[in-house]
Amino acid sequence: MELSRCSLNSMTVPRLDFEQLVEVAARAGIPAIAPWREVTRAYGIRRARDLVERAGLAVTSLCRAGMFTSETAAGRQEAVDDCRLAIDEAHELGAPVLPLVCGPVVDKNPRGSRAMIRDGIERIIEHAAQASVVLGIEPLHPMLAGDRSIITSLAEANGICGSIDHPNLGVVIDAYNVWFDPDLDDEMMRSPCVGLQLADWVVPIRNHTAARGMPGDGCIDLSGFVHRAKENGYLGPIEVEVISERWAAEDPERVVQLVVERFTAL
Amino acid sequence: MELSRCSLNSMTVPRLDFEQLVEVAARAGIPAIAPWREVTRAYGIRRARDLVERAGLAVTSLCRAGMFTSETAAGRQEAVDDCRLAIDEAHELGAPVLPLVCGPVVDKNPRGSRAMIRDGIERIIEHAAQASVVLGIEPLHPMLAGDRSIITSLAEANGICGSIDHPNLGVVIDAYNVWFDPDLDDEMMRSPCVGLQLADWVVPIRNHTAARGMPGDGCIDLSGFVHRAKENGYLGPIEVEVISERWAAEDPERVVQLVVERFTAL
Repeated sequence: MELSRCSLNSMTVPRLDFEQLVEVAARAGIPAIAPWREVTRAYGIRRARDLVERAGLAVTSLCRAGMFTSETAAGRQEAVDDCRLAIDEAHELGAPVLPLVCGPVVDKNPRGSRAMIRDGIERIIEHAAQASVVLGIEPLHPMLAGDRSIITSLAEANGICGSIDHPNLGVVIDAYNVWFDPDLDDEMMRSPCVGLQLADWVVPIRNHTAARGMPGDGCIDLSGFVHRAKENGYLGPIEVEVISERWAAEDPERVVQLVVERFTAL
Repeated sequence: MELSRCSLNSMTVPRLDFEQLVEVAARAGIPAIAPWREVTRAYGIRRARDLVERAGLAVTSLCRAGMFTSETAAGRQEAVDDCRLAIDEAHELGAPVLPLVCGPVVDKNPRGSRAMIRDGIERIIEHAAQASVVLGIEPLHPMLAGDRSIITSLAEANGICGSIDHPNLGVVIDAYNVWFDPDLDDEMMRSPCVGLQLADWVVPIRNHTAARGMPGDGCIDLSGFVHRAKENGYLGPIEVEVISERWAAEDPERVVQLVVERFTAL
């Protein structure tokens, strides 16, 4: 895949601050970054935008908001408030997409938890539209249903998009989360895709939130994944987001070199 | 749930040999066991059957066979041969059900891997019928798709059963593997269920093959799960299979007491 479509997610090199992230991406010829909110806020959002513009890079998304589920109304309100703040941050940074990690099951009730998520998205969608930010529901891997998101399939994410039906709502598809899905081809075809992310599946998993593999090291047909998305009309950026204790411990320059090699080999 | 429906899976107390497994189950008032093949073979299958009969216990299943996927024809043949052996072992032990862990993705090709699985089952189903053993396709949690089974949903397992359509083929449903599935209710309703298993979902996961929770400790509505199965007409045994590094390290007697408490509280 052409490097012009690559975006470096800050969680692939989590020890870097915002300035270093911009530097390594620019030096490696990667034309865009996808920073997480923490690293962006630590640097200052306005400064971050200026720095990115001076470096000639694009920002593809600001990761992330959501977590709509809570046992209490106060908890759900807090999530909505934080999402509104995240939308403002994305707007200020110039990030077109805000991925939504929707929140885990609560009250042992997947159905009720999903209703909370739908309700939460409905409460922030107009704010997103006013800020010209697109919300991207990201179905997560089912191993994250207990602590990150009970939206665990592309079919569910597509379904929420279909029922809310708003131009500022789409889906962010991370190969790591959906690769095993027997309905993946069909669901990708009908998906209002606003972002694509890559990481490979490797085992064993010693930390279920940070055990991702570098593209090419695992069992996912990532080449097929990105080409299928292209056939379906998705021509936007492709973020490499390797959340991994192993890769976090390596030299970030080396990690980014590997990202470039593996991405262009797809 | 009545303890008369409980079966103790040997992996809940993996440090016990077959004789000890029978003893702790009988002492705790659990009327059945579900031993793994290793622990059964180590004791001797014929002796194991005699011991179980003398103790007045039932065997609900012999865990497990499958692993049909392989890059090579020789590897696939080896799996089929092992499955035939496992069917013979189940017959000799008097275990009515042989759960199938179907094998991971190979060649980065989920579709091709699933075809290998279907083919493998077709190659052993008549042998199972002759031995009066029912094969139970067990959909595994998607976090096991890379090293255990690319059959990761109840819909897929039901689909294979529907297409092969044989009285000696059914599905073993473990709550741990399918609890997050938005289609769970519908798929349970149409499932040819021949076995039910319980473990709870707890985080963090430090070993993706052995991080299960004791029923009641996690976020799965296990009570709803077993009652739904009953409503759908499943009145057979319910195995407690808590594959867990944590519980494996505890005193087995204490673990089994907890199993009894939690099971009867469902």
